[in-house]
This record gives sequence, structure tokens and C-alpha cells, in this order.
Amino acid sequence: MDVAQLRVQTPGCAESAYFDNAGSALPAERVTRTVIDHLLLEQRVGGYVAADAAAGRLDAVYTSVARLINAKPHEIALVENATRAWDMAFYAIPFKPGDRILTSRSEYPSNALAFLQARERFGVEVEAVPDDGNGQLCLDALAERLGQGGVRLVAVNHAPTYDGLVNPAAEIGELAARAGALYLLDACQSVGQLPVDVRRIGCHLLSATGRKYLRAPRGTGFLYVSEEVVDQLDPPLLDLRAATWTGPESFELKADAKRFETWERNVAGLLGLGAAVDDVLDLGIEAVRERIALLSDSLRFGLSRLPGVTVCDRGAVRSGIVTFVKDGWSAEDLVARLREEGVTTDFSLPSRARFDTRPDKPAVVVRASVHYYNTLAEQEQLINAVAGF
Amino acid sequence: MDVAQLRVQTPGCAESAYFDNAGSALPAERVTRTVIDHLLLEQRVGGYVAADAAAGRLDAVYTSVARLINAKPHEIALVENATRAWDMAFYAIPFKPGDRILTSRSEYPSNALAFLQARERFGVEVEAVPDDGNGQLCLDALAERLGQGGVRLVAVNHAPTYDGLVNPAAEIGELAARAGALYLLDACQSVGQLPVDVRRIGCHLLSATGRKYLRAPRGTGFLYVSEEVVDQLDPPLLDLRAATWTGPESFELKADAKRFETWERNVAGLLGLGAAVDDVLDLGIEAVRERIALLSDSLRFGLSRLPGVTVCDRGAVRSGIVTFVKDGWSAEDLVARLREEGVTTDFSLPSRARFDTRPDKPAVVVRASVHYYNTLAEQEQLINAVAGF
Repeated sequence: MDVAQLRVQTPGCAESAYFDNAGSALPAERVTRTVIDHLLLEQRVGGYVAADAAAGRLDAVYTSVARLINAKPHEIALVENATRAWDMAFYAIPFKPGDRILTSRSEYPSNALAFLQARERFGVEVEAVPDDGNGQLCLDALAERLGQGGVRLVAVNHAPTYDGLVNPAAEIGELAARAGALYLLDACQSVGQLPVDVRRIGCHLLSATGRKYLRAPRGTGFLYVSEEVVDQLDPPLLDLRAATWTGPESFELKADAKRFETWERNVAGLLGLGAAVDDVLDLGIEAVRERIALLSDSLRFGLSRLPGVTVCDRGAVRSGIVTFVKDGWSAEDLVARLREEGVTTDFSLPSRARFDTRPDKPAVVVRASVHYYNTLAEQEQLINAVAGF
Repeated sequence: MDVAQLRVQTPGCAESAYFDNAGSALPAERVTRTVIDHLLLEQRVGGYVAADAAAGRLDAVYTSVARLINAKPHEIALVENATRAWDMAFYAIPFKPGDRILTSRSEYPSNALAFLQARERFGVEVEAVPDDGNGQLCLDALAERLGQGGVRLVAVNHAPTYDGLVNPAAEIGELAARAGALYLLDACQSVGQLPVDVRRIGCHLLSATGRKYLRAPRGTGFLYVSEEVVDQLDPPLLDLRAATWTGPESFELKADAKRFETWERNVAGLLGLGAAVDDVLDLGIEAVRERIALLSDSLRFGLSRLPGVTVCDRGAVRSGIVTFVKDGWSAEDLVARLREEGVTTDFSLPSRARFDTRPDKPAVVVRASVHYYNTLAEQEQLINAVAGF
């Protein structure tokens, strides 16, 4: 990986030591250019003529996304963000009273809100499977709960947002399959930084965003829906792209993941998503994973050696998300001070993860999420700044 | 209205005689520039830092949209398109079996699909109120059906997409209010070309898109939710912006239209939406309406005088949408030939409106939708081209 070249192609690298990649990563110039070029074309010829001209390239986005996660293009729905991708899948499941939903303690609030809403609406049971002490979902506990029967859905995060842990997605998939449960994987923070292969993982549904590790524009995301389960799913919202109005009292849903899309879309943004995905495919996700692992391990090590600094990450396998606190400092103040020093981080709120009931859980942490374009020198800058405060 | 100046500020005006404004209007350069500037800022500093910097301007978008339709800012949800805006409102209504939904014969397919899905799910009854012979919803028929009781919702289009008619929105609102029915107005084609005042119209819910008459970017739209009804509505999908996760088994919906939003958004596009709305506010919607009425009446007149050409528009009051067919030509071929002559139109498919069961309904028509930046000279160009084929 030619990091120097990748940094040249990323204008934001010249602006700050950028560690908010789990928030919204820096786009490559080529990606922003793709979006802007299409906006300028729309300005010249109008939105529909521009979309016609880009139709082939828009189709290619499905192929690229499918390649990235080892799916088929017709199993991909392009949507506006990860939450909507996840929502369209989750709310399409025809729950019955007493159906059980298993999730993890580290579940993302938006997903948890949907579980609780489904509980009110359909009388489903929502259970946060205990973690194994490292934070990641405990496979034995999952197996035991699956064995009790009645589990309609296993829905977990691959790489939770609040600390660096990675859930054992493929092992969860094996257990879910054995129990005949649907498996919905929230890959919002993992796609683009970790290998995500839907066949190997065995998930039926997977949601992802563009803006995080994929380095794609804001307002883009995608949903994977396995062709094996799509006909069991009733989209929560319908649009004329999702179904055909066949007569005054009849309609037919599209046979594939298109049933989860809307006709009107941010075409420019989606072309940018395609360009960003193509970049990852060119680099190779294994090379990306390796470099992020190297950098994040090194950052954790450097931070952990500082007096008064505690690295809060959990998990046997870890993502590019590095979280820490410093004695005597609020995370918000640290983030603000780091920004003055030319270091971009963000804070993260484990307090929001209400299934995670650890009494010693930090309420707010600094989140320094690394990407492959970060350098050891930038990490030194971050570590030295934190040390000096 | 200084049309010459407005055209200079609209680069697309130099490219073609543009009559696809009901599809996706030409943006003003200033609007595209607003979007691009934010994308470039995101490229430099990252998506979240850029959003922080634009927070005040993003807030101002709510104020602008609210001013445009005479609502309050907290009654506005900014979303990704009109269908999702409409969906979020419609699917939030807690229907009971036997509830009646009244709509118009000219209803848009995406909305009709939602009605039919609700029929399957909740056992509601869906009725397309007859039109008055001019195409627009017949107020006497509506009053009669409302009088029969049990109407939960009146949901109609303001300016349907398939021909130039305008439904009597305020009169419908008066009747709906008298019957105690919720009133959802699809203003997708009317906002930006006609005065739309939610208090005067009396709708509780209103959906709109950016890309059409507002001349805003694709992938933007908004929903108005009256503060009087918001607490009756249960959003079909939840996100952490829409609700607060208050405990392991509890959550609270936001008290206002935010309950229909997602946290992640196309910030650049929404800033563009704000710029476009501000432009309409500056011009004054009454001036816009007047000019569009002048141009569209003149275009209808010019086309109707051509041998073999039939103008298909209906309605006592008409919008900027002008539809026509020519003997011996398919609409698709006409659109393609017009494009060769430097005239951008689109075709429209009244055949898709399946509540409109007229036996003599045209299946496909050319749709030449005018905006205030069009000129009589451009219309002459269109008319002469059609005459010459």
C-alpha cells in the first residue's frame, strides 16, 4: 500500500491528523470529484437527463458493492444511510407475538429503539445476550438461548461504535443458521475496514453506510438482502420502485432487494459511493485490515503507556476504533483541545448503550478511529498532545 | 421578476430549452455551489467537523422551509425525498380495521401502493373519490363520503404528476376538518410553483421534494407535521434522532417532527435545499405562480392549435405541467426527437394511475413542464419543433 500516494489523493490529510474515521472518514479527491462532476452535469442538463447518462455507472455501483461483500448485485439495495438500510430490513420481518429477538449488549441505540418499538407493536421479546467478559457477544450464551427455541432474529453489530471490539460475526452466523433464525448484521462500522463476506458470515441481511470506513459521501448506504429470504420480507414502506401497481386493488413487490429502494435518490452521492467502493476493491480489504490493525494496536499501546490515560477498548479482536479517557479531563474537552493541536477526534457515548449495564462503564470517551491513510507520525502527534495536556 | 438575470444564474438555460421542471428542475448556480462548497469542506475537514461548522445554516433550513409553507420550524422534518416524507407520515397513522382512507382518482402510484399495503395489513378501506369531470377531486362526492363516517384519512395530491390539474386543496381541508379526518397533502409537484400555506389549506401533514419546482438538489425533501397531530403519530421507523433510549426497556419519541428524521443525512444537499427555498422566498411565490400560469397557458394554447396535436391537461385550475400527444407519434419518440432539437421534455404515464379508470385515458403523454425561467421564445421553439415533425 502506497500510503504517501494515498495521502496525496486525500486532501484532508494535509489539514489535520484525522482520527474520526468511524464518524465520517476523509474522502479521496476522486470520490468528491465524482459527486461534483455529476452535480455539475445535473446543473447543465437537468437531473433526469443526467441520470440517464449515468445509468450504466449507477448499475455498476451495485456490482461493486456486491463484489465487496461477496453478494449478487440484485441482493443489494442502495439507500440513504445505514440506519435506513437496517430499518428497511428489520421492520420488514413479519414478527408474531412471542417471537424472540437476540442482540448483543453493545447494540447501537437506533437498532435498540427499533427492537423496543417492535416489542410494543408485536409483543416480541428482546434479549441482550451477555458478553464474554471481553465485551464481545458470548457464543456459549448465544447457543444456549438459541437452543431454547422461538428465536426469529439474531441482530448484532459487527464492530460496535462505542469501543474497539469486533463481534464474532461468522460464528454467530453458524449458530443462527443451526437454529433456523434470521440473521441481520449491522456492518456500519466494519465494511471498508474488515473483510465482510456475507456467504462466509452467513448473514441474511446486512446494513452499511458510505461515510465511515468506505470513505464515501454522506447520505449514502446499502442493504444486502439474501435472495434466499427476500420473499419472506414485507417492506415497511413502499415506493413505485419497490413494487408495481398492477390494478386498482393489486400490486406486486419486486422480487429482489429493489423492494427496499426508492425511485428518487441522490444519484451524485451514489456514484461517489461506487467510486469509494472501487477504491477499496483496488486496494484489497486484507491490506486495509492489516494496516488498520497495525496502526490501531500501536495507537492503543502508545496511549496506554501515558500516565493517567486509560484505553477503554474491549474485544479479543479489535477494530480501528481506539477509545480512551484521561484523568481530570472530560472527553469533550480533550476532543476540543486536540482539535486546537491539529488533531481531529470525536467523543463517543457508551452511556447511550443501555443494554450494556456494566457498573464501571465509562460514560463518555474520546474516540480516535484510524484509517489506512493515517501514519505513525500522526499517532505520535496525537499521543504527545494527550501527554502534554 | 428579472427573467434574463435568473436565466444567467441558471447555467442549464444555456444548454437546452428546458421543460422537465416537474421531473427535476434546473438548479440555480448558487444552489449547486452551496452543495459543492460543503462537499469540499467535508473533503478538507471531515463530515462531522463540516456539519458542526454548518449547524447554524442547517437550522436555518428549517426556518426557511417553515416560512415557505407557513408552518413552524419544529413542524418540519428534513428527509431524503417526497416519497419518504409521505411514507413517514402515512405509515405513522395508527389505522384500525375498517378505517376508511379517501383519495383521488389521480393519486400517485407510490401513495396508492401504500394504501393497498395498509389494506392488506390493517384491513382499512381505500376509496378513490370520483373526480368532477375536469379531473380534479369532486368536492360534493368527497363531502358525501365523509358524511358516511369512519374516514380516518383524506390523502390527495395537490398537483398530480400526469397532467396539469390542481386539486382544490383548501376546500378539501375544510371538508376533512368538518369530518374530523386527518388530511395528508402530497405537495410534491406544487411546492415551489403554487402558494402552499398549510394553515390556509388546513392539512395536518404535507410532503414535498426538493428537486422539482423548488429547484433544489436531488435526494432532498421535507415533511410538515402539524404540532396538533404529531403526538398521535407513531413513526414507522425509528432512529436515535427520532427518539431517546431512556433505559434498557424504554424510549421516548421526540415531541415534534424530529421523530420522523434520521441522524445521518446528506448535509450538503440539505444546505442546497435551504438555498433553493430562500430563492423562492426572495422571488415571492405569487410572482412565480403568475409567471408559470402565463407561460403554461400560452404553451397549451400554442400546442392546441397544431394539427394532430392534443393537449391532455385537465382541471379548472392548472399547474405548470403541460401534457400532449401527437397523432402518429409515440410520446417516447417525440421526447427523443425534441431532445435532438435542443428541447428537454419527458414523457409521463397516466396508464400507471390505476384509480383513474377513464376508458379514453391516454397511456403515455409528452410532459412539458414550465418554470419561471422559461421564455416565450423557448416555447416557440418547442411548438415549432412539434409542428415540424
